[in-house]
Amino acid sequence: MEAGDFDSVEKRAFHRKNQRRRPSVAEEFNGLPAHVWPTTATRDEEGVISIGGVPLPEIAAEFGTPVFVVDENDFRSRCRQMADAFGGPGNVHYASKAFLSRRIARWVADEGLALDVASLGELQVALAAGFPAERITAHGNNKKEEFMRLCVTEGVGHVVLDCPQEIDRLNAIAAAEDATVEVMVRVKPGIEAHTHEFIATSHEDQKFGFSLASGSAEQACLDAVKAPNLDLVGLHCHVGSQVFDAQGFSLAAERLLTLMRKLKDSVSGADAAKITLLDLGGGYGIAYTAAQKPLDVATVAGNLIKEVAEKSAELGLDRPQILVEPGRAIAGPSTVTLYTVGTVKDVHTSAEHTRRYIAIDGGMSDNIRPALYSADYEARVAGRLTDGESVDTRLVGSHCESGDILISDAAWPDDIGTGDLIAVPGTGAYCFAMSSRYNMIMRPAVVSVKDGKAELMVRRETIEDVLALDMM
Amino acid sequence: MEAGDFDSVEKRAFHRKNQRRRPSVAEEFNGLPAHVWPTTATRDEEGVISIGGVPLPEIAAEFGTPVFVVDENDFRSRCRQMADAFGGPGNVHYASKAFLSRRIARWVADEGLALDVASLGELQVALAAGFPAERITAHGNNKKEEFMRLCVTEGVGHVVLDCPQEIDRLNAIAAAEDATVEVMVRVKPGIEAHTHEFIATSHEDQKFGFSLASGSAEQACLDAVKAPNLDLVGLHCHVGSQVFDAQGFSLAAERLLTLMRKLKDSVSGADAAKITLLDLGGGYGIAYTAAQKPLDVATVAGNLIKEVAEKSAELGLDRPQILVEPGRAIAGPSTVTLYTVGTVKDVHTSAEHTRRYIAIDGGMSDNIRPALYSADYEARVAGRLTDGESVDTRLVGSHCESGDILISDAAWPDDIGTGDLIAVPGTGAYCFAMSSRYNMIMRPAVVSVKDGKAELMVRRETIEDVLALDMM
Ligand SMILES: Cc1ncc(COP(=O)(O)O)c(C=O)c1O
Ligand SMILES: Cc1ncc(COP(=O)(O)O)c(C=O)c1O
Repeated sequence: MEAGDFDSVEKRAFHRKNQRRRPSVAEEFNGLPAHVWPTTATRDEEGVISIGGVPLPEIAAEFGTPVFVVDENDFRSRCRQMADAFGGPGNVHYASKAFLSRRIARWVADEGLALDVASLGELQVALAAGFPAERITAHGNNKKEEFMRLCVTEGVGHVVLDCPQEIDRLNAIAAAEDATVEVMVRVKPGIEAHTHEFIATSHEDQKFGFSLASGSAEQACLDAVKAPNLDLVGLHCHVGSQVFDAQGFSLAAERLLTLMRKLKDSVSGADAAKITLLDLGGGYGIAYTAAQKPLDVATVAGNLIKEVAEKSAELGLDRPQILVEPGRAIAGPSTVTLYTVGTVKDVHTSAEHTRRYIAIDGGMSDNIRPALYSADYEARVAGRLTDGESVDTRLVGSHCESGDILISDAAWPDDIGTGDLIAVPGTGAYCFAMSSRYNMIMRPAVVSVKDGKAELMVRRETIEDVLALDMM
Repeated sequence: MEAGDFDSVEKRAFHRKNQRRRPSVAEEFNGLPAHVWPTTATRDEEGVISIGGVPLPEIAAEFGTPVFVVDENDFRSRCRQMADAFGGPGNVHYASKAFLSRRIARWVADEGLALDVASLGELQVALAAGFPAERITAHGNNKKEEFMRLCVTEGVGHVVLDCPQEIDRLNAIAAAEDATVEVMVRVKPGIEAHTHEFIATSHEDQKFGFSLASGSAEQACLDAVKAPNLDLVGLHCHVGSQVFDAQGFSLAAERLLTLMRKLKDSVSGADAAKITLLDLGGGYGIAYTAAQKPLDVATVAGNLIKEVAEKSAELGLDRPQILVEPGRAIAGPSTVTLYTVGTVKDVHTSAEHTRRYIAIDGGMSDNIRPALYSADYEARVAGRLTDGESVDTRLVGSHCESGDILISDAAWPDDIGTGDLIAVPGTGAYCFAMSSRYNMIMRPAVVSVKDGKAELMVRRETIEDVLALDMM
């Protein structure tokens, strides 16, 4: 439409009306985009959404809301996809910071994947689940003495060194235990992945790792090689989270290979032969909304493997074993948070505009990502089909804080009301893991579903749990 | 200095050197600004900081780090200051969302203050502490049925109505229990306090309350008056948090008084006589850093009381009782978080600039405010005097996330290292209350100090607490 077209207003109104008739807001709102929802999600003729063969209203009735519903098949299938893409399950380390429970650790173990832990607590949970220590990699920019000692005494597969002091400390602990620890060095390749600032972690001015550019990464590697109780077996980097531009991975791999070449030239043949791992971290982006496209992992992996092979050949290196550490891409899409609508309020934000505030029984305590990262989410009514005209809607929580917003601006049908079940997909990563007890709103239950059965994975907190910590 | 002054570089270097000799970075860094630190904070000749007469290194040794240290005298003295400023302890409701434990509730009760709760859980903790129900006010934009019922059955002093549905629901619950509930109506006076967006809560486009401008606040009041089991006793508003511009409070008070006048004209004399409370909420700003100035509460209160008296007289109203709900201004300055330095890393951010990363054993799990609100903090070394040249420093946590930053950019002495105790003041509000278990880093202990004695208030979480929720 041209400027100066005087019919434009009427035409637009006409178009809008017609558009509404075709894919109505309700039709769109009733859909379950396959790239956003767990693989087993279905909706029956009544509109009831099931996951893992279990109707969500039944889960709400049995376990209460808010509740996280984890699709076991979805989680496991993403483990397998990653394993297939990267040449075998042993090359894929599930980043447990995204979400960890003993059952999750066992699924990961079953699928043959390895596991990343980033703290003493994550390691303890993994070990409590019986996860094989030799398949665990330990991360962290400030590893506690106790954490490093447990890594050594339990025989954790790899420890990733993050700063000069850690080389000495870990070596001393290993010496005291008469052990040799396989280590990687975390390298800052100087790449800033195109993602939200808070999540990007590979530029120079950040707390993790050793700088490639300044030479401190190389020095750290040489120091690790020299440390009598450490074996340097690889290089590690992590270019960011929720990454959609795979170029970052390729460039990082290239730079790490160049460092690997340098190292192999400067250490003994025996030491050089031990350096075989190229760990490229996590960060594979997922779709939180229908408009987003998840990173195509198979393609990215294929290209990455090819590029690493070519670059290795070019540098005269044996091709290293590529490791990856996806957290979000495995856990995120597997899970849906189920809430119940409490209050509904129409707010006149101007003479012409009304915003509907729909309040659910959770909020920033179970999902801090919208407030913390301006993360986008979508939601659906889980127990029925909706039908109505579009109304600008904001989904808010029950916390005593105006920033407690889950979905800031959505066009939803206007028939959603008190008692409706709201399901928010894509909440498997960094939601329960970052959950708080703000306003003494108890942390939700987590339920896993599979083949028509729902099983409690993490029980809901109670006031007794709060008072158990409170010393009167 | 003029542009074109060719000596400028040398002169600047000279000035810098001389400036450094006067109030050196270490001298400034060793100071404990009285408006930022708890009132009982002292530093001895060795440089050891004590709070409540207890040396912080002793607390670290006995309870471990990270640990929150709450100065009981400070907390209580701020209760009393608020009470003095606002005409008596009964006019001051401590906003328990800032930080609540049973001991805190008892201090508040002892001091004669009232208490705000914003959820079932907060109410349960208060009642478990024996806090008198009639001195409790219940808030929330989406009050659970169970929460409202407990308010009614326990005889909570006031319930603040937030939306139309709540009027009916609360009335029905009260009817079922054969009770009458005193209520206030939460009004949006249309004022946006000058503070961080996430914390401001009084403009129109937000989830809380009834709009004054649209008439829905008046309608809600009339509905509340009509509801047989509710007694409308006042109007409530909350213009924002960490407010430094007291104009917001005055303007809100004025607008609420105008509504009060209207109401008194339209309801019966008996109903009008019941409307006596003007609750102006919380939001009194505190100093997190030496550069910030806390709001002078006594002056603000004096002005507010005078303005309300004048405006009431002007409107022909009996002067209502002014209530306030400070959370941060009571709890915030009472508390210091104590951490231990783990790793220290110098990062070359450019050829000329180095940033020192000091990592402590906590982070965004015990204080999300810097990441969530870009909140500023300062810190001190707690166990000794520091001495050194200034170095640009960033205080970071132990979480596996690059946004895990507590203090982004500080000029600190360069002699701070592993094992040093770091004390961050001003962490009494919205820190422990919003704490998470991210990365399975356990929530810290909270210790209260007074007259040379330290007592555990909230015990540290353990891996057993995590596994107790984990259903295998
Ligand atoms: C070292 C490391 N590996 C893996 C991950 C997992 O990232 P994602 O969940 O985005 O795959 C992170 C996330 O912060 C990380 O820091
Ligand atoms: C209704 C209400 N009252 C009181 C407070 C306490 O605010 P502050 O801690 O800033 O005093 C809040 C904070 O969000 C609030 O929403």
